[in-house]
Amino acid sequence: MSFIDLKYKPNKNDLVCLFRVEPKKGVSIKKAAEAVAGESSIGTWTHVKTMKPRIKKLGAKIFEIKGNYIKVAYPLDLFEPANMPQILSSIAGNIFGMKAVDNLRLEDIDWPVNIIRSFKGPLYGIKGIRKILKIPKRPLCGTIIKPKLGLNEKEHAKVAYEAWTGGIDIVKDDENLSNLRFNKFEKRVVETLKMRDKAERETGEKKVYMPNVTAETNEMLSRAQFVKEQNGRYAMVDIITVGWSALQTLRDVNDHLKLVLHAHRSGHATFTRNKKHGISMVVVGDISRLIGLDQLHIGTIIGKMEGIKSEILTTEEEIEKSIIREHSHSLAEDWLHIKPIFAVCSGGLHPGHAHYLIKNLGNNIIIQAGGGIHGHRSGTKAGAKAMRQAIDATLNNISLKEYSKSHKELKVALQQWL
Amino acid sequence: MSFIDLKYKPNKNDLVCLFRVEPKKGVSIKKAAEAVAGESSIGTWTHVKTMKPRIKKLGAKIFEIKGNYIKVAYPLDLFEPANMPQILSSIAGNIFGMKAVDNLRLEDIDWPVNIIRSFKGPLYGIKGIRKILKIPKRPLCGTIIKPKLGLNEKEHAKVAYEAWTGGIDIVKDDENLSNLRFNKFEKRVVETLKMRDKAERETGEKKVYMPNVTAETNEMLSRAQFVKEQNGRYAMVDIITVGWSALQTLRDVNDHLKLVLHAHRSGHATFTRNKKHGISMVVVGDISRLIGLDQLHIGTIIGKMEGIKSEILTTEEEIEKSIIREHSHSLAEDWLHIKPIFAVCSGGLHPGHAHYLIKNLGNNIIIQAGGGIHGHRSGTKAGAKAMRQAIDATLNNISLKEYSKSHKELKVALQQWL
Repeated sequence: MSFIDLKYKPNKNDLVCLFRVEPKKGVSIKKAAEAVAGESSIGTWTHVKTMKPRIKKLGAKIFEIKGNYIKVAYPLDLFEPANMPQILSSIAGNIFGMKAVDNLRLEDIDWPVNIIRSFKGPLYGIKGIRKILKIPKRPLCGTIIKPKLGLNEKEHAKVAYEAWTGGIDIVKDDENLSNLRFNKFEKRVVETLKMRDKAERETGEKKVYMPNVTAETNEMLSRAQFVKEQNGRYAMVDIITVGWSALQTLRDVNDHLKLVLHAHRSGHATFTRNKKHGISMVVVGDISRLIGLDQLHIGTIIGKMEGIKSEILTTEEEIEKSIIREHSHSLAEDWLHIKPIFAVCSGGLHPGHAHYLIKNLGNNIIIQAGGGIHGHRSGTKAGAKAMRQAIDATLNNISLKEYSKSHKELKVALQQWL
Repeated sequence: MSFIDLKYKPNKNDLVCLFRVEPKKGVSIKKAAEAVAGESSIGTWTHVKTMKPRIKKLGAKIFEIKGNYIKVAYPLDLFEPANMPQILSSIAGNIFGMKAVDNLRLEDIDWPVNIIRSFKGPLYGIKGIRKILKIPKRPLCGTIIKPKLGLNEKEHAKVAYEAWTGGIDIVKDDENLSNLRFNKFEKRVVETLKMRDKAERETGEKKVYMPNVTAETNEMLSRAQFVKEQNGRYAMVDIITVGWSALQTLRDVNDHLKLVLHAHRSGHATFTRNKKHGISMVVVGDISRLIGLDQLHIGTIIGKMEGIKSEILTTEEEIEKSIIREHSHSLAEDWLHIKPIFAVCSGGLHPGHAHYLIKNLGNNIIIQAGGGIHGHRSGTKAGAKAMRQAIDATLNNISLKEYSKSHKELKVALQQWL
């Protein structure tokens, strides 16, 4: 049977995928597309005697082929609502290993209404987070405690305090800090939240601590529960290494924990970096939004991590807008009840980057800097001040250089890193 | 600080990684290696004022650089035992996205004793599975019910019955068959196990059904529980799309469920296929063995899926042997108490492949064919007979062609597909 139907018009019950296909040498784009659509729906490599006429209706339909890009519509019945691993095992599974393609990339997904309705989406989203922090408009600023690992619980809490009192909103554990010999999870949470309360009293601002709950599912849930009991408001999790099943579980439990969930994407670049093969960051954003993370790292354009500007902008649009329009390499989406995710820029940033990030990505971003705060020549508190100054300058349309004339912490930061 | 120490000799408390590093143009291999070792241990892109002398001991040590391959030893304290997501967020996390490297691949991991001891490993392993099936030596043969999706519960059970009575040992759901509108999980399990019992009575052989429990963690556990209550002995799970946290949870619960756990790797090729970037299949085997899956798809060499012979052989050795010797692109390992995983070959196989697979991969493999059984011109039962005949011929050192002269099902299969 053929899976190509160029006259087909997808409807709101179809799941639509945009793939970039690079056929094996000697294989036509049509034949490679057929292999992809078959393997991800009801086909196999040979005709099977157990096929029945009624089942052919479940076949995927390739309804557009443009150069290396194909659009495939999948009937809703192929998927189990609210089961992200099952959905991905279909459309992001075996197909990447097929000999028929040399390279294959899942660029974007347009979700059918019934699948969107089966997921919870973020509990807070951008508006909810802004309400908690009482910051209606400006970009948020965050820091990762550095060095990545090695500080004990009290040292960790003290560095956090310095950052908060310098003007930072959010303090985050690093992606590999969990419950370690020299820094135990529970003690760290207790000590750091104590410092958060102190910083809130002293600054009159709302302050956030995001403890890293990454672990086996039940251990992760019990750590999140502990954070709640200690009056924490946030938890962070490494979404790629934890995996989609446990993330759905965390989101389910969060109906009563009511934490803001921060998604670190450690490991994503194993499959998102190659622009010819794997899964795009836009799709990671899609999945995270459906499942219901409130904040997600999307890249920095500048900084220490790779990331193409156009893909980062598309990812931001995908997670922050309610209605997405189709672009050349991405699909439309109507997110219905699903709230937006707050985009996080993190990785090799310092105060000198703030202007560029805000101008390119807007005010709805969280600018996170680790080395760019704790590496400030005068220490963490000065680094934190410099970052807030850089954000203030940008919001007031004053150049960083001009603003640094009257703000010494920013001046030092620019001298150090620009 | 520098992370290079070419005189360092790793000890049994170190976690050792073998990476293939392709530096960014203009960056030396040493500098790229430093960036990798720093980001995956305690470093960041700039000197931080919060660093303390005692913390430097936690730094990773690059102790070998050979061409593009580097070996890095990590102190045990960087890791949380029994927390696979945390371990991977360190050594298989941010580093893949760093601008300092154009490509980076984690080729193999040599685990420290204390981390091996913190995981359970497979409950059954190869010996345990052979005991259940009462098959002491020959390769096992399995089939995936086809078409992938579309049959209802009774049709599914009937096809399974045909396969079992034809001589197949193991019947498996496909990776995207979970609880679907036209084929409900519980009803499918009940109907198919009923047919399993019938097939066992009629053939006098042990027969296995592997229902796909892939879902959100708690739903997955409750499906596994249901399988157990219905007197099932096996469950299968899509390890990549489910994720490591939930797999650890499934393995924990399996201490009392006592199911044999079959691992489908749907989606692995998003990060294992590119031999320059991502994570090798050998590492997926490593992780699966530590967590405790009993069976794992490793590739076919031949068939419809890509897979380099050397990598498939290394993966098989990694998951099946107790003591692994170092090869040019893989590390040594002593698996201690961790049992071996049974290797599964699956993807575009038919009876004509049996000889090649057994000669190259030995008797400790499970040969799975979907289309190669149900696509047999005379139907599923004949296809199953042909596969058993092909295995019997190989074990008796008779060529398939010779054996097919007196075995008509094999003859037809060879005519169809060779």
